[in-house]
Amino acid sequence: MSPSTPSSTSSPSPSPAISPSSPSATAPPSTAPVSVLGLGMMGTALATALVRAGHPVTVWNRTPARTGPLVAQGATPAGTPADAVTASPLVVLCLLDNANVHEVLDTLGDTVSGRTLVNLTNGTPAQARELAARAAERGARYIDGGIMAVPQMIAGPHAYVLYSGDEEAYRAHRATLAAFGGTTWAGTDPGLAALHDLGLLTGMYGMVIGVLQAFALVRTENIRAADFAEPLVTWIGAMLAGAPEWARAIDSGEHLTDVSSIAVNQAAFPNFLAAYRDQGISGELFAPFQKLLDRAMAEGHAEDGLSRLAELLRDE
Amino acid sequence: MSPSTPSSTSSPSPSPAISPSSPSATAPPSTAPVSVLGLGMMGTALATALVRAGHPVTVWNRTPARTGPLVAQGATPAGTPADAVTASPLVVLCLLDNANVHEVLDTLGDTVSGRTLVNLTNGTPAQARELAARAAERGARYIDGGIMAVPQMIAGPHAYVLYSGDEEAYRAHRATLAAFGGTTWAGTDPGLAALHDLGLLTGMYGMVIGVLQAFALVRTENIRAADFAEPLVTWIGAMLAGAPEWARAIDSGEHLTDVSSIAVNQAAFPNFLAAYRDQGISGELFAPFQKLLDRAMAEGHAEDGLSRLAELLRDE
Repeated sequence: MSPSTPSSTSSPSPSPAISPSSPSATAPPSTAPVSVLGLGMMGTALATALVRAGHPVTVWNRTPARTGPLVAQGATPAGTPADAVTASPLVVLCLLDNANVHEVLDTLGDTVSGRTLVNLTNGTPAQARELAARAAERGARYIDGGIMAVPQMIAGPHAYVLYSGDEEAYRAHRATLAAFGGTTWAGTDPGLAALHDLGLLTGMYGMVIGVLQAFALVRTENIRAADFAEPLVTWIGAMLAGAPEWARAIDSGEHLTDVSSIAVNQAAFPNFLAAYRDQGISGELFAPFQKLLDRAMAEGHAEDGLSRLAELLRDE
Repeated sequence: MSPSTPSSTSSPSPSPAISPSSPSATAPPSTAPVSVLGLGMMGTALATALVRAGHPVTVWNRTPARTGPLVAQGATPAGTPADAVTASPLVVLCLLDNANVHEVLDTLGDTVSGRTLVNLTNGTPAQARELAARAAERGARYIDGGIMAVPQMIAGPHAYVLYSGDEEAYRAHRATLAAFGGTTWAGTDPGLAALHDLGLLTGMYGMVIGVLQAFALVRTENIRAADFAEPLVTWIGAMLAGAPEWARAIDSGEHLTDVSSIAVNQAAFPNFLAAYRDQGISGELFAPFQKLLDRAMAEGHAEDGLSRLAELLRDE
């Protein structure tokens, strides 16, 4: 995905849940050494940003050939993860998955002691907490991060990274981390960055599901998706403005509404599934929504707004 | 749902797919008689808008008591649907569902001959086409409509209604229909208004699914949904800006991307389902998305962007 004008993502709003700090533009130049483990598309983008910001950068990748372009830009290749870790007090991990992080940690032993690990590998809150505990056992400081950007956006004005975990280490290295984009502090619980990251991306995936299904639907009548995109984006954007109101209902537990009730939506939704069927597209992505509406009706929430569904998702 | 600032919905952008016409503000005053059949929340809002615009309005509802507030505002109650239809050349139907529309038509016989029926009852494209054929058999002109508003928005600056079917009848009555809000012409095929309406609402439901799941997720850690709403809305809004690019990929069939591939998303999504499970919320709304990503991988689309999924939805 490549949003064309996501200017507002560069400075997420202040809130008790996610406290943004200054964007990279205000950070002082820093030439502290940094090591980057993992040079997939994202790891390469991160290491490149650090090189361009003037840092001495040591890089390691399981497949050594991937270090080539970075070495050409001035980075130093390391033969092993331990060699990379000993080169810098700050170590950024951007591996394929959580299992890979544990595998690399297995090879590091106590070389991480006294260093700060910033794990930007995709993971869950539980995985982040487990890694934080493991790092602490080895005497390392642990920061978990969730990157709100695709690789192409790194170091650009619209990228930001959520961090949580060791706040002292975060403050000590924030100027360096600002090379990636905006830095946003999610809290000292190491799981919070992943939780916020997964929450934001969950919202995005829902939107993506809706947009793709909508395009598939109108295309059945040879309507061009490109012609439908603008009214669709406008409509979804307008309806999205209702989210803070649903949030208040969810926080308060008061879901009564005079706007669009569970009953109205539950009665209307069979039309959608029928239309998908009639038009020859799959309803697989939306069938569970009908079941959830049905369950909400069965549990007596007919007069509540759709915000009630967020509570039903916790009832499994 | 009640969007707080959906100003852009009042004038959907011009496109070959949906051709907007002038908003109500530019329509000349009209005092043509109109009948409204069906006084649920939406039908009541429509009839009220017509009364306030100065039209002589005749109303009918299965439960006669619901006519009371409108009669108090000057509308004339009708004892039967046929009585209501004979009172006006323009008849608006806003009933519970498509079956109700057929039931009412069963009672009307040839009273509809020479009149224009505007059906704003929720329905599918196939249902609209069937009703258009049935109306034609009785000598009536048929316009199908999809209301892009909740009842509280009717006659306000942000409401609009999509119309399709008999274009001559639409042009003859557009000034009257403008009492409801903006009027948008979707085409002479009577199914097109429902198709566009279902497409827009499908997109909205996807967004709603994402937002509710995101709120449910962050709430598991006692984060207030209200605190998460603003970063969430900002992020989804930014990503939504990518929709025109996915549309171009879908129209062209060229889904290759260097931004966010099926492979990357398919590898990352198990983290989401694991996190939902870890945090004690249901993954029921998103499990089918993982299956669709898996299917896309199995069918060899690893390097394509997510836009490819819209085509897979047509493969069932």
